[in-house]
Amino acid sequence: MLQKNDALAERNRAWLRGREVLALNLVSSPGAGKTALLERTIRDFGERRPISVIEGDQQTLFDAERIRATGAAAVQVNTGTGCHLEADMVMEAIKVLRPASGSIVMIENVGNLVCPALFDLGEECKVAILSVTEGEDKPAKYPHMFQASKLMLLNKIDLLPYVDFDVERSLAFAREVNPDIEVLHVSAKTGEGLDAWYEWLESSAAEVADRAFA
Amino acid sequence: MLQKNDALAERNRAWLRGREVLALNLVSSPGAGKTALLERTIRDFGERRPISVIEGDQQTLFDAERIRATGAAAVQVNTGTGCHLEADMVMEAIKVLRPASGSIVMIENVGNLVCPALFDLGEECKVAILSVTEGEDKPAKYPHMFQASKLMLLNKIDLLPYVDFDVERSLAFAREVNPDIEVLHVSAKTGEGLDAWYEWLESSAAEVADRAFA
Repeated sequence: MLQKNDALAERNRAWLRGREVLALNLVSSPGAGKTALLERTIRDFGERRPISVIEGDQQTLFDAERIRATGAAAVQVNTGTGCHLEADMVMEAIKVLRPASGSIVMIENVGNLVCPALFDLGEECKVAILSVTEGEDKPAKYPHMFQASKLMLLNKIDLLPYVDFDVERSLAFAREVNPDIEVLHVSAKTGEGLDAWYEWLESSAAEVADRAFA
Repeated sequence: MLQKNDALAERNRAWLRGREVLALNLVSSPGAGKTALLERTIRDFGERRPISVIEGDQQTLFDAERIRATGAAAVQVNTGTGCHLEADMVMEAIKVLRPASGSIVMIENVGNLVCPALFDLGEECKVAILSVTEGEDKPAKYPHMFQASKLMLLNKIDLLPYVDFDVERSLAFAREVNPDIEVLHVSAKTGEGLDAWYEWLESSAAEVADRAFA
């Protein structure tokens, strides 16, 4: 099953690179703030590059409805008992979204720090969102996800005064499992730190265009 | 694989009932506060009934070390790339813990609102922990877990003033997927609401003794 998924993922990646579309696979625990981050990103950054969204959840249409309320296109994929998105679901959704060249496709995976690490969707890279309410040990306890991610967004930093969370220790754990991981500190609620995230998005989208013929 | 697991789970349950041991399967997102709840429960309630703990995590021995620091016995099970505990792992751990008749075995599953819902470990029941930082929609988005749970502990209520979390809506979502679910509001940090949890534990342990010959 993994082998079949990997072949479809490679096809997705080729299609996306050919079209010069940046696709990101957003992974996190349930409730780490992926959807809130996307809502804000679309509002703040969506005029620079169009963003469309694939929403993965076991059940409900809540997240796609939240994204559509921002004006962006969204497709909801319900996985039922399934614990992750797979490459074939992503291509089906992309055909509905019809993303323009130069645009960004955000794939919000099922909230799960385990299984989505194993399933390549054809994304350019994975972005792990860790919220400070979850405890600083999560990169060590779920190493595969943080190994598989290029960027870690440390979210909900507005709550740092109210929780026991050692930021330096969380970064040390993340770097222990993935020395190359990039880290940005953000609050999707207050907007703190989001400019650096938007710069990262812009430069990643520009790199995808460079890679079309690489 | 599920079928084989279910047979082993039934055997575990028979063993536990014969011995009059209450086994609970604690399930939640990563970072919902399962370990903190156990640490506090052992300190506050552990003199009434002995508590031993099976800790499931992909990686690290952190949680078993935290539990042992309270004086309770704990076994860490690392699942590697696995996303949930299985019945055979639980019986291996029980043989190490050697729980006394009348005691409680807490099984802290891998932090994951998806896969552990499908795997019976032989527990008396599942207890879902939902923290208020995760958003009130989680019971609707991960319905299988909340359907499978007898009790929902709404944790981290000390953070309610700092987050957008609609308590009534979260209860409505939980009851929509599981009309019979019991709910307790707690803070493992401040201790608020824990007396009701200890009463629930005591009466559940007493019921297990009643069921030995049922």
